[in-house]
Amino acid sequence: MNESKIVYKKVSLRSPILIVGLPGIGNVGNLAAQYLVQKLNAKEFATLYSPHFPYIVIATPDGSFRLVSNRFYYYKNKKLSHDLVILIGDYQPASSEGQYEVNDKIVRFFKSLGGKEVYTLGGYSTEDRYVPNPRVFGVTKSKAMHEKLEKAGVVFNIAPSLSIVGAAGMVLAFADEQHMQVACIMGETGMLEVDANSAKSVLEVLSKLLGLDIDLKDMNNLQKETEKFIKELEQASKSAQHEEFPNYIK
Amino acid sequence: MNESKIVYKKVSLRSPILIVGLPGIGNVGNLAAQYLVQKLNAKEFATLYSPHFPYIVIATPDGSFRLVSNRFYYYKNKKLSHDLVILIGDYQPASSEGQYEVNDKIVRFFKSLGGKEVYTLGGYSTEDRYVPNPRVFGVTKSKAMHEKLEKAGVVFNIAPSLSIVGAAGMVLAFADEQHMQVACIMGETGMLEVDANSAKSVLEVLSKLLGLDIDLKDMNNLQKETEKFIKELEQASKSAQHEEFPNYIK
Amino acid sequence: MNESKIVYKKVSLRSPILIVGLPGIGNVGNLAAQYLVQKLNAKEFATLYSPHFPYIVIATPDGSFRLVSNRFYYYKNKKLSHDLVILIGDYQPASSEGQYEVNDKIVRFFKSLGGKEVYTLGGYSTEDRYVPNPRVFGVTKSKAMHEKLEKAGVVFNIAPSLSIVGAAGMVLAFADEQHMQVACIMGETGMLEVDANSAKSVLEVLSKLLGLDIDLKDMNNLQKETEKFIKELEQASKSAQHEEFPNYIK
Amino acid sequence: MNESKIVYKKVSLRSPILIVGLPGIGNVGNLAAQYLVQKLNAKEFATLYSPHFPYIVIATPDGSFRLVSNRFYYYKNKKLSHDLVILIGDYQPASSEGQYEVNDKIVRFFKSLGGKEVYTLGGYSTEDRYVPNPRVFGVTKSKAMHEKLEKAGVVFNIAPSLSIVGAAGMVLAFADEQHMQVACIMGETGMLEVDANSAKSVLEVLSKLLGLDIDLKDMNNLQKETEKFIKELEQASKSAQHEEFPNYIK
Repeated sequence: MNESKIVYKKVSLRSPILIVGLPGIGNVGNLAAQYLVQKLNAKEFATLYSPHFPYIVIATPDGSFRLVSNRFYYYKNKKLSHDLVILIGDYQPASSEGQYEVNDKIVRFFKSLGGKEVYTLGGYSTEDRYVPNPRVFGVTKSKAMHEKLEKAGVVFNIAPSLSIVGAAGMVLAFADEQHMQVACIMGETGMLEVDANSAKSVLEVLSKLLGLDIDLKDMNNLQKETEKFIKELEQASKSAQHEEFPNYIK
Repeated sequence: MNESKIVYKKVSLRSPILIVGLPGIGNVGNLAAQYLVQKLNAKEFATLYSPHFPYIVIATPDGSFRLVSNRFYYYKNKKLSHDLVILIGDYQPASSEGQYEVNDKIVRFFKSLGGKEVYTLGGYSTEDRYVPNPRVFGVTKSKAMHEKLEKAGVVFNIAPSLSIVGAAGMVLAFADEQHMQVACIMGETGMLEVDANSAKSVLEVLSKLLGLDIDLKDMNNLQKETEKFIKELEQASKSAQHEEFPNYIK
Repeated sequence: MNESKIVYKKVSLRSPILIVGLPGIGNVGNLAAQYLVQKLNAKEFATLYSPHFPYIVIATPDGSFRLVSNRFYYYKNKKLSHDLVILIGDYQPASSEGQYEVNDKIVRFFKSLGGKEVYTLGGYSTEDRYVPNPRVFGVTKSKAMHEKLEKAGVVFNIAPSLSIVGAAGMVLAFADEQHMQVACIMGETGMLEVDANSAKSVLEVLSKLLGLDIDLKDMNNLQKETEKFIKELEQASKSAQHEEFPNYIK
Repeated sequence: MNESKIVYKKVSLRSPILIVGLPGIGNVGNLAAQYLVQKLNAKEFATLYSPHFPYIVIATPDGSFRLVSNRFYYYKNKKLSHDLVILIGDYQPASSEGQYEVNDKIVRFFKSLGGKEVYTLGGYSTEDRYVPNPRVFGVTKSKAMHEKLEKAGVVFNIAPSLSIVGAAGMVLAFADEQHMQVACIMGETGMLEVDANSAKSVLEVLSKLLGLDIDLKDMNNLQKETEKFIKELEQASKSAQHEEFPNYIK
């Protein structure tokens, strides 16, 4: 396996909108997107494997296993003018070369589905403390999108200059290159490892943007669930770190 | 040499079963597989070289040398319904890209031999102390294999979530993708660098699974042998670490 | 995106001269080249993207964004015998493979524009203190260029042996391989992160070499501007460093 | 430049013998080979460039420069039954992939010259102190070569197991794969950065093996020369380390 690949089932989607929520700052984007998948009961239809992901197989509690991946889900609802595609995953690539290759592949796959609009979700860390009322910051090139985001409560004019690292930025750039409407939506976060509060703020904005009616009240519940989920992930990655390889590897 | 390659002699094998025991946690898998090769007097028939292995040539005590590699052995016995292929080696690749490439190559080569069943051996570190009566944990996707493993004494339902790093996991995933019957068998280990006790537990399970009649009583002997072997390896890797390269490399 | 690429508008240039000023020691080359672009009101006409650059999108203060890049500007002036092409950028590649690929691409692109002469700008750190009257050191293979540089005040016979790391050296070597006239011009600098004083010295030499009439008096102004610019960059890179990735990445 | 390449002048050589002396432990191999080049007045005829070498251009004291490289020299002498090819260089590749690619290329190039015999030179560090009377250790696969080496004073049966890292080992393995007669000759060294004493021992053995009549008495002179040379190299690499890159690179 020398190249990333996407294994998928064919699904017919109405000019879908892509929502990208991969691991990152405060795990905000990943949390928000996972919540969406759960609440919308979205269906998995495509899996991205990559030699740029860690060489890890995750053993699941039922005694089975799966190779680490990024996964695409779809959600169809006739009330919405667009179907949704939601991307979540275990890891992002660790190298520049991997990031450029994988995120470009994500955009090309989404384009092949007829997609023309993308929202990447992430966290934006302002300070080293918990943010009780997180603002949601935005980045976009399109005037129309800019106005739409502002109406949904997104704040612009952040810092004089800001770096968006990883998929939240790269998918943005590659989708823009493909002439899609794109925006990155970042929840303010105070360097928590898992910030459900910030994820909630991002979901509130996203619901307005997409016309979704999502039950966001039990975010406390989500917070507990995700903290449990993250603890499991941490345990898994701890056990991964325990692995002892010959001197060469360490 | 830009790609991994397998140099091999043609051998005719009856729908062989692959046993993978490469360096890893507690060196459990490697020890167990090396013991198998010795006791079964298995014959080397294929060697895997890779630019993802360290750039090391091992000088042997007789004044000769060999490039680091992974090596395939076969064992034929008419009493068994399947021939065996056993994979051991000096190192695993150190990078993600290397792990995906090499382990995929291993599975494809084994498939070309007509193989349909794979056991990867490894260690599973539970705590930072010696485990006198190591359990053997398992991971598999197939119900039939699950039952077979349980009968052989394998324990499932390990931690809520666990990462299997390297060949023990990657070969599992790639062989499963090729529709093979696969299982990973991990001996509980307490972070010893060489855990012959854990390797013995793994071999006991494996003997039952494969219907092998292996003399496991002199595992104490193995323990001594392997400790000697490992000390040699350590000396070799120490001398490797002593190498002084120009500043750039360090 | 597996390869570096240059996206460009066609422009007709009279046997252009390339000036390379990318981030490096004391940011001398980058400062000098950015100043040139500003003062000459040079026009951007080509952008180099590379999977060897960091996986970062820069959010701009106006709420928009751009993928990190190197950028080519041109300057036409009938008073000069040559048009100018100026290369500035956000980053240099971080790996050897990236440096060899990207800098070779830069030279080939410039050659396709009909270019035959190259000046790379950089800093040369002598000591760990501020240098009030920085000398300008030079490196070249051509006798004619050597004399020309000496007339412009460039000092040769630096240290017994010196390494020029990154684009300032690599573009030099690749352009020389293409039979271009090349020189590297380095301003003495005392390990400041941003040394506008050294950049000014480099610009003074470059102006003489190219017959440019550039207002260098308000370098104090530049110093302030660039310090502001650099602070923004630092803030951006700090925020980039804050990004939290899963264990695997850090 | 995505691949290593060898730029060469055609020379006609009588079944040449390759001597490889690249930077490594105690710089023994590099010192010995450089001394040979000097004393034999061997002629440079081929240069190997590689994207796996550091991205460094070396500025020379005369104001010129050159890209880092490995360089082939030849020596013809009708008194000898074979012509010699000597390989020296600034650096070895820093990655596994680079080592496998570059050393394979070296062997293929030498094969294209009609070569069938290779000696790689290196250091073998025994302890952390100066070795006044260094032994010379050897590694080879061929019985004939083994005897030849022993007659020349080479000691076998070193440690129970030893790793030879880098070109001294890799060229050995690749040349053996090409059915050449190969040996690695290592001077005992006590972790000096530059061990001319050990290099002298290696040269004494090599002279016997090749029937060379080299003035080895002024090795004290060499020691001084090389220490000066190394100090220059160190200065160059120090200045390289001083280079300040943007945050991403460090």
